[in-house]
Amino acid sequence: MDFPQPLDGAITPRFAGPVTFMRLPQIEDATQVDIGLLGVPFDLGTTNRSGPRHGPREIRNVSSIIRRAHPVTRVEPCRLARVADVGDTPTNPADLMQSLRMIEDRVAEIRATGAWTLALGGDHLISLPILRGIHRARPDLGPIGMVHFDAHSDTNDTYFGGARFTHGTPFRRAIEEGLLDPARIVQIGIRGSLFDATDMHWARDQGVRIITIEEFQDLGIDATMAEARRVVGDRPCYLTFDVDCLDPAFAPGTGTPEIGGLMPREAQRMIRALRGLPIIGADVVEVAPPFDVGNATALIAATMMFEILCLMAEARVTEP
Amino acid sequence: MDFPQPLDGAITPRFAGPVTFMRLPQIEDATQVDIGLLGVPFDLGTTNRSGPRHGPREIRNVSSIIRRAHPVTRVEPCRLARVADVGDTPTNPADLMQSLRMIEDRVAEIRATGAWTLALGGDHLISLPILRGIHRARPDLGPIGMVHFDAHSDTNDTYFGGARFTHGTPFRRAIEEGLLDPARIVQIGIRGSLFDATDMHWARDQGVRIITIEEFQDLGIDATMAEARRVVGDRPCYLTFDVDCLDPAFAPGTGTPEIGGLMPREAQRMIRALRGLPIIGADVVEVAPPFDVGNATALIAATMMFEILCLMAEARVTEP
Amino acid sequence: MDFPQPLDGAITPRFAGPVTFMRLPQIEDATQVDIGLLGVPFDLGTTNRSGPRHGPREIRNVSSIIRRAHPVTRVEPCRLARVADVGDTPTNPADLMQSLRMIEDRVAEIRATGAWTLALGGDHLISLPILRGIHRARPDLGPIGMVHFDAHSDTNDTYFGGARFTHGTPFRRAIEEGLLDPARIVQIGIRGSLFDATDMHWARDQGVRIITIEEFQDLGIDATMAEARRVVGDRPCYLTFDVDCLDPAFAPGTGTPEIGGLMPREAQRMIRALRGLPIIGADVVEVAPPFDVGNATALIAATMMFEILCLMAEARVTEP
Amino acid sequence: MDFPQPLDGAITPRFAGPVTFMRLPQIEDATQVDIGLLGVPFDLGTTNRSGPRHGPREIRNVSSIIRRAHPVTRVEPCRLARVADVGDTPTNPADLMQSLRMIEDRVAEIRATGAWTLALGGDHLISLPILRGIHRARPDLGPIGMVHFDAHSDTNDTYFGGARFTHGTPFRRAIEEGLLDPARIVQIGIRGSLFDATDMHWARDQGVRIITIEEFQDLGIDATMAEARRVVGDRPCYLTFDVDCLDPAFAPGTGTPEIGGLMPREAQRMIRALRGLPIIGADVVEVAPPFDVGNATALIAATMMFEILCLMAEARVTEP
Amino acid sequence: MDFPQPLDGAITPRFAGPVTFMRLPQIEDATQVDIGLLGVPFDLGTTNRSGPRHGPREIRNVSSIIRRAHPVTRVEPCRLARVADVGDTPTNPADLMQSLRMIEDRVAEIRATGAWTLALGGDHLISLPILRGIHRARPDLGPIGMVHFDAHSDTNDTYFGGARFTHGTPFRRAIEEGLLDPARIVQIGIRGSLFDATDMHWARDQGVRIITIEEFQDLGIDATMAEARRVVGDRPCYLTFDVDCLDPAFAPGTGTPEIGGLMPREAQRMIRALRGLPIIGADVVEVAPPFDVGNATALIAATMMFEILCLMAEARVTEP
Amino acid sequence: MDFPQPLDGAITPRFAGPVTFMRLPQIEDATQVDIGLLGVPFDLGTTNRSGPRHGPREIRNVSSIIRRAHPVTRVEPCRLARVADVGDTPTNPADLMQSLRMIEDRVAEIRATGAWTLALGGDHLISLPILRGIHRARPDLGPIGMVHFDAHSDTNDTYFGGARFTHGTPFRRAIEEGLLDPARIVQIGIRGSLFDATDMHWARDQGVRIITIEEFQDLGIDATMAEARRVVGDRPCYLTFDVDCLDPAFAPGTGTPEIGGLMPREAQRMIRALRGLPIIGADVVEVAPPFDVGNATALIAATMMFEILCLMAEARVTEP
Repeated sequence: MDFPQPLDGAITPRFAGPVTFMRLPQIEDATQVDIGLLGVPFDLGTTNRSGPRHGPREIRNVSSIIRRAHPVTRVEPCRLARVADVGDTPTNPADLMQSLRMIEDRVAEIRATGAWTLALGGDHLISLPILRGIHRARPDLGPIGMVHFDAHSDTNDTYFGGARFTHGTPFRRAIEEGLLDPARIVQIGIRGSLFDATDMHWARDQGVRIITIEEFQDLGIDATMAEARRVVGDRPCYLTFDVDCLDPAFAPGTGTPEIGGLMPREAQRMIRALRGLPIIGADVVEVAPPFDVGNATALIAATMMFEILCLMAEARVTEP
Repeated sequence: MDFPQPLDGAITPRFAGPVTFMRLPQIEDATQVDIGLLGVPFDLGTTNRSGPRHGPREIRNVSSIIRRAHPVTRVEPCRLARVADVGDTPTNPADLMQSLRMIEDRVAEIRATGAWTLALGGDHLISLPILRGIHRARPDLGPIGMVHFDAHSDTNDTYFGGARFTHGTPFRRAIEEGLLDPARIVQIGIRGSLFDATDMHWARDQGVRIITIEEFQDLGIDATMAEARRVVGDRPCYLTFDVDCLDPAFAPGTGTPEIGGLMPREAQRMIRALRGLPIIGADVVEVAPPFDVGNATALIAATMMFEILCLMAEARVTEP
Repeated sequence: MDFPQPLDGAITPRFAGPVTFMRLPQIEDATQVDIGLLGVPFDLGTTNRSGPRHGPREIRNVSSIIRRAHPVTRVEPCRLARVADVGDTPTNPADLMQSLRMIEDRVAEIRATGAWTLALGGDHLISLPILRGIHRARPDLGPIGMVHFDAHSDTNDTYFGGARFTHGTPFRRAIEEGLLDPARIVQIGIRGSLFDATDMHWARDQGVRIITIEEFQDLGIDATMAEARRVVGDRPCYLTFDVDCLDPAFAPGTGTPEIGGLMPREAQRMIRALRGLPIIGADVVEVAPPFDVGNATALIAATMMFEILCLMAEARVTEP
Repeated sequence: MDFPQPLDGAITPRFAGPVTFMRLPQIEDATQVDIGLLGVPFDLGTTNRSGPRHGPREIRNVSSIIRRAHPVTRVEPCRLARVADVGDTPTNPADLMQSLRMIEDRVAEIRATGAWTLALGGDHLISLPILRGIHRARPDLGPIGMVHFDAHSDTNDTYFGGARFTHGTPFRRAIEEGLLDPARIVQIGIRGSLFDATDMHWARDQGVRIITIEEFQDLGIDATMAEARRVVGDRPCYLTFDVDCLDPAFAPGTGTPEIGGLMPREAQRMIRALRGLPIIGADVVEVAPPFDVGNATALIAATMMFEILCLMAEARVTEP
Repeated sequence: MDFPQPLDGAITPRFAGPVTFMRLPQIEDATQVDIGLLGVPFDLGTTNRSGPRHGPREIRNVSSIIRRAHPVTRVEPCRLARVADVGDTPTNPADLMQSLRMIEDRVAEIRATGAWTLALGGDHLISLPILRGIHRARPDLGPIGMVHFDAHSDTNDTYFGGARFTHGTPFRRAIEEGLLDPARIVQIGIRGSLFDATDMHWARDQGVRIITIEEFQDLGIDATMAEARRVVGDRPCYLTFDVDCLDPAFAPGTGTPEIGGLMPREAQRMIRALRGLPIIGADVVEVAPPFDVGNATALIAATMMFEILCLMAEARVTEP
Repeated sequence: MDFPQPLDGAITPRFAGPVTFMRLPQIEDATQVDIGLLGVPFDLGTTNRSGPRHGPREIRNVSSIIRRAHPVTRVEPCRLARVADVGDTPTNPADLMQSLRMIEDRVAEIRATGAWTLALGGDHLISLPILRGIHRARPDLGPIGMVHFDAHSDTNDTYFGGARFTHGTPFRRAIEEGLLDPARIVQIGIRGSLFDATDMHWARDQGVRIITIEEFQDLGIDATMAEARRVVGDRPCYLTFDVDCLDPAFAPGTGTPEIGGLMPREAQRMIRALRGLPIIGADVVEVAPPFDVGNATALIAATMMFEILCLMAEARVTEP
């Protein structure tokens, strides 16, 4: 088996070698890849504290600390599939709308080869052009399901007197555009003060299943994830992990921290509970290095990337 | 209804606008206010690492991130009562005793109008002049009850060979002065090494109910708060929240950190469990910005202020 | 004389009181003001590391450390003119072009009353809508001169395949639009690697006088400023101070640091050497708090604001 | 009783006085000491991010915050035994192998007097020369048991093509050398991605009991510690506490952080559950101050030192 | 010669060993000492950002980096005189006035043995009780001269409506009390905005020679120091070095930073220019570790301590 | 001309793209390269604060901010020569001596193709194996000259009782081994306290020309560099730039900071003054990211790399 392999930290010290995800080879030609780790350095959707444009670099930087095998499942994802770092999408830091098109185009290009993408964000608005790109390459899939870890529902309508494309609105747009099936969306970890008491009414009216942090605390990990699996079912789905689902003590490097969030060990177990789902695309978003502390948030993001990569590699193998 | 309202972060970006609590109007005339958010920039009671003199500024600074409605109760406090930022009390950084008088005077002045105060500290010694000010304006209340979140009992007698007024002594003084009824005080989260094995004997002898972090871990949130409500009863009480009740990973910006503390999501649930109590005054103290990391502690303090404000606004409405 | 005065740090401690510039009153009605300190929380023009949207807040936050009189000239600007903090312009963090219009409108509104503005940025693109606003209110002035402290000429044409409005292009646009007279522009402190060897040819072709850091080192402060005064002449001019003119050891909190810059004490003397010029508007830009270290850059910006305010207050008095 | 006592923070402020552990006297002559707090400033075993050479200084620096009595057991260790800071072992930062000998020699010298050691590391490789030093002074003990808190098993064989002495290998060497009895070793908190799927097979084959973080979460504190006590039995044992057993949000200042770890309050309870065991030596390791945030990790290490000191002081008293 | 010697960093690594100044022995009995390095952990005189209470610890912590010989003069101070760390003065963090007495008492006690003191502050108010202590032990000296490096004159009268003892007033008090001869005081580096235009009139009226930063820039190092020597003459004098004389880029860890200050290499040359003066006491003050960045300010303070120690050791030898 | 070119920050945003030096292609095959940018992630020579093992990564990380043309000479080095990032040398973090061999081997391998190296360190000991590697590939050159910017002479003999290979000894070894011609070595910026008064006697006895910081201040830039050129002559020479030649306010991220150093703008001019010298190899060393502040030191190192690269590219073109 000669799939691309990450450098081994017991041979090449972790502080040396290339700054790609897990020090995997960088391969821009998606035809040689099953799962492409794709940087999306974009944060023009951010309404307050920007910074996720720097996320892909810093997540890659710390990812040399990840070793090749999963500690619980013992899965070695780079032995199951051809995994590589496919570099960054183009973006234009001076033009939000053009950037959305650039991201969509690159995703569509990759997905057209049959490769899947696991994106390193970027703010949460990037999920929209990624979903558009998937849909463009695979319209046959129709609206797909989604497991969504976040403090915020991100289904607001507009900001600042009419802005329809911000990191608070991607999933409203995605539902409106038929990219996602709201009845197969589950949102986990939602919390924080509200713009007004009717926030999230629209999402609930569409059928989105919102599991607040309070409900999670009452249910526990197992029941929460059983509910999540019930919602998304067993057809292809997307996984989006906003690091602000975590408590800001763990993930301070993010733009809209809300106290009282998940612990990483809870999040790890929740992601592992998705094993076996046909997760055909995913992203980890809202890592804002200028607000990070000692790269803690980037380290969590890199580890969660690896957790998700393990799921996707297994799903890829069992794909019909 | 034309009560003062905070600026809306979906209209005016959160990084813009005035630096008042939640970007509410600043109104110094307490007759126009039901609940006054009152800065108390004072830390001369600190025995080791000072800094809370800078607390009110930084709590206000980050508070623009708070939205107007509570995520669980859906309460919008600024629609229930006239809430405003009433500015800072005067203090004298070169004179501890005069500062205590200045704080007491300003609190008494506000409370004399019938307004309530929710204070942004400041070190924990500020609770003493606040309680004195309340008592001066409302001597009819007599000794009141108190819910006290903290790592420390703050009922020591003296420091440094006779110093009676430090942040380790306010509640001993308040009990001695008849401001608090020790039998209606509950202290939650107490932990950390002791000056000697008899620490807290005095407090327990007075009838103060001390729930250590260990007892809390054994009881859980619900039983802890049932006990707290049993202790304080249903007559007027004060709520004081020392951020060092929290684990220092969450709240590093404080002068006397003790490892092994509460998580913010536990503290939020505990505060919410006080809903319905006649909380007529409160403070959030011991935020020391020079020791904070990325404003994490100020963010927690601002959020806890909002949690408490929701309780007080409801209590204010139902006040006989 | 009852002009608005800043709070006195020898009476109200510097850590207390309102977070306005120098703790001056906030007065949004420009008819009551001669010189308005105007926040412009905008950074959508930033091509790499954003953050200046947070600049006005943090500059105001540290400005309480400024006392009322200038140490060399003994000028007390708030005794010469009605100076106040006029708050922030509206901006839309999701729409660059709309933000430019919002800034221009607010500036035009203030300038229409006859008041002058001294802006707290914001990235350097804000100078463009400010100059437009001035021009709209005072078209009679025609193209004006400018003293420009910066590491970069900011006269590039486009970025990212056509973006005409970034913080690297404002003065090209301003010259093209007839807002500035290139023959009366002097740029001081220019340095740093170039996109290519022909950078700044356009500016020089227009007649802009560029004093690189190397030329400054050769000339010294006095000759540099004599040249600057020669260029701008004695008609109304604008002053723009990009904190990246300073060496990043002094001003790390900025988006495009270039090593080898000015020292603050040099910059102070250079600004003082402009005494007597009719500076009718100014800005201090590119303070990016997420990249700042201990608020050092904000402190410099606040102090430079004060230096410039002293010049403008004197110019205002002697205005014909 | 005239045992050495720490300075009292209610008399001498915590920011004053000597920088020894708990501000105890420094006594290098081990004959005057029952339990010696021993700095081991060494980190040449570190394979990625070094720094623990600075650990002893910073742990001592923050340890002035520890008071003399344990909050739960009320034990005052310095009243049960002669406890002192015995200073640092010699080390040679340019010679790994010589450093190991220097550490072993100093430990053997101390232990030869009958005194016990509680070491402040240093990276985890220091446990090896410490165990060698104990064994040299007390060969009669034979292979001893060990309670080991860590994210990593530290039983790898070699790194970098043959390096046998790194912080990833100490316990393999110690087992091979007959210093530890693998059947009496319990490792708690193990987690993180693996070099390959067979990691830890060797350890398990030797009979080491590995309790992963996942098993801990399933078992809870009480069952985990019952199992730990069952494994180590009631004969003399060593306790080693690697701060990376904790989640990096709590203990960021370490070289190989793994997300998803223990909370300090859990670790405290687990250590307390060892009360009564004959713990005759211990260390707290892997505090890397250059990566620490606000001394948080050093504070945890100091507190854990105190927890362990209380256990050792009681064990010392009951020693036959 | 068996004077106490610092540990040698080429033998004992700089990260190891005791945390005393230069890792000299700590000797509290002043009769065994010629020059005592004396910590004064006090900051109750601070009007804004406190923190110098932590200064002595952190200056000592970094001082292990100082080697024993001066690079220019080749002086080895610990070979010229018996130099030792004499520990900290007592202070009471809850009582400003008592602290002043405690400091004075300890200084008087040391000076009564004939030993000289070089103090590690502490805020600038500590100079007052130190001068009182010197005067009490040596009233025969009468009012002495002083070389004073600072951004501020520290000769204000009162703060906050009457506070006479703050870090802005020590030298007014010292002149009033006859401890200093104003005609033999020179202040170097003075700058920063003024409370009002008459600040420093009192000092100048007393005959104090104030060399502002602007005058220093015009004069250069040599002429400035010639003037300084002219002012203080050749009789015994005190040297006080406030780290805020330096630009805050170099010394950020201080309470009242003023931009535009001295560079350390200038300050070093200026101190060296005092060689031969009978400097019989000195202090380095206003190091505020909570505001420091990477211990930069503490490192400067430690190095300046060493520069001054070299001067004092030579002066001690030549003392009649 | 199709030499490898760096990505253009006006097309691909600087926060995107590969993390190589200047975002040049990574080309490990030296036959395709004229000047190879070579990472040397090694710091086992460090006697106190380690960290330069992380230097190459962070220098590359920030180097995306460098544009392609030199601001003064207008040189575009990547148009004069084939410049590429050749990756990192192997190192073994657990074996100092093996690491030296690994570095030497890789350098010799590159130089054997005729390519030159510009190394990103790494601590200063790396200069020794680099010089060995050059010498092995080009023994015909004989002992070469060297321009050496540093606070320290690095010509000590041994540390810690016999350690001959540390970052304080490389140039003593290189002179002893005949790699360098001491009469053609100039050291600039030397300062800081000395182990004893005879430090540097050996170096001066060999004929090394040491220009201390004091002498530099007296001479000025031009005379200093004239002297430097006189010493090294016009035959091939090496350039080594230790970032601790700079004042720690500019370059805090280094292991042995000495206050009072060079300013970057001085260093830039000094390097430019070497234009025309046959600099056939160079390194920039002692960047210790764990001690850096906001990547300031890495930014300086990247810029100095670019300055040196411009010199080397010109020298390469004119090479006979």
